[in-house]
Amino acid sequence: MIVKLRYKINLPNSLRTQNIGSTLHGVLMELLPSELVEHLHNLSYNPFRQRLIFEKELVIWEIVGLHKMVSEELLKLENLREITIKRAQKTVSLSLLSKDAIAVDDLVKKEMGREIDSRIISLKFTSPTSFKANGHYDIFPDIRKIFRSLMMNFDFFSETTKIYDYEVLSYIEENVHIVSYKLMTKNFHLEKIKVKGFQGDMTLKVTGAEQFVKLVLLMIKYATFAGIGMKTSLGMGGVSINERHYLR
Amino acid sequence: MIVKLRYKINLPNSLRTQNIGSTLHGVLMELLPSELVEHLHNLSYNPFRQRLIFEKELVIWEIVGLHKMVSEELLKLENLREITIKRAQKTVSLSLLSKDAIAVDDLVKKEMGREIDSRIISLKFTSPTSFKANGHYDIFPDIRKIFRSLMMNFDFFSETTKIYDYEVLSYIEENVHIVSYKLMTKNFHLEKIKVKGFQGDMTLKVTGAEQFVKLVLLMIKYATFAGIGMKTSLGMGGVSINERHYLR
Repeated sequence: MIVKLRYKINLPNSLRTQNIGSTLHGVLMELLPSELVEHLHNLSYNPFRQRLIFEKELVIWEIVGLHKMVSEELLKLENLREITIKRAQKTVSLSLLSKDAIAVDDLVKKEMGREIDSRIISLKFTSPTSFKANGHYDIFPDIRKIFRSLMMNFDFFSETTKIYDYEVLSYIEENVHIVSYKLMTKNFHLEKIKVKGFQGDMTLKVTGAEQFVKLVLLMIKYATFAGIGMKTSLGMGGVSINERHYLR
Repeated sequence: MIVKLRYKINLPNSLRTQNIGSTLHGVLMELLPSELVEHLHNLSYNPFRQRLIFEKELVIWEIVGLHKMVSEELLKLENLREITIKRAQKTVSLSLLSKDAIAVDDLVKKEMGREIDSRIISLKFTSPTSFKANGHYDIFPDIRKIFRSLMMNFDFFSETTKIYDYEVLSYIEENVHIVSYKLMTKNFHLEKIKVKGFQGDMTLKVTGAEQFVKLVLLMIKYATFAGIGMKTSLGMGGVSINERHYLR
């Protein structure tokens, strides 16, 4: 089960930045049972993601569980009204904006059952997004890396449906094209280092059979929960679909 | 000899767009001797480049000759005060802002003799920039393609110094890195088609020996005359150096 909670978070100006992502990650870890947190450390993919989204004056703290082991715990946070950021000695108030819960299989069924009315998908990267490759960071989007990472994440947490396949990934690379973009590089501060990523808008065009388009859309929809690329638990790689272009 | 003329061009609002690039190219061809224009058609690289640059309210028409066969003709246009854009039935006035003339060998000597005080080069792509590859357009910058195209252009017009070398190109690919950018895709209208390119800011960092950094800078300096990528005679691929970062 995937759970997404979105809170309005009343951050003071001094903390209104993507760069407190790893701090907020720490705050959230303290709200979870310690055995669970320990267990998370041993997983190759963290089933728990969180990120800040800045929409003009509004700051949204989005918390996602990708697997029931954390999703069930997240549901208990529905009534969370404040958190304390110890490092900054600040208590900030929260109010829940929305709560979504969907079984992975239901997500698959829903997305694969959609009618396709457009092959254009417009995305907004809401926080710095990057991929680590051979010791350096990739600051340009790359279709193969985006979809490989999404499929790997999906399969790690899905107990029934599995999607990753080398041939499908090659087919994606041939049939999903970045047709326009407005992107800029931005630094994301981790505890001691800065990671550079890209942020902004990107539009994809998908060719190929309808079922394939639906699979691509399913992965994109999954990305709105899981994020894309590296350090998505700390707040990097946040992505949303610009609804104007969304295939309804 | 390389000649660059920069005019302030008083375009009416309806013509204030990059998209009249091919029209202005046509206007300029009519100002040149017809035997020269005919000869240009048979060359692999056009020694004549022109582009519009929009700096807030100011519109600059930049005309460049990369070889004496056109540079000498361009110098005669120094007193040009108006041009007629037949298609739009408009006569627009011009005033010369600057005139640069430099022998290719002097450019090489000057750039290779500089002191290097920074390995960071900040560029502004002032018009849509693109590369044609295997039947599609590249809408992301690519170091190899940028420098390959610059070296090829340089060598075609330089009678003494030759720069292109496969190993140097590979060394450039390993030692020149895009470290940040703020770019967006834009369409450039040719007569009947639209070509998509990227436009905006990009910062390079150069590693390697000092002489190598100077060679990279020489190519970048050449790019401010020649442009980068495809359709640079029609106005695509205009590039300038953001002086703040320029290695003095």
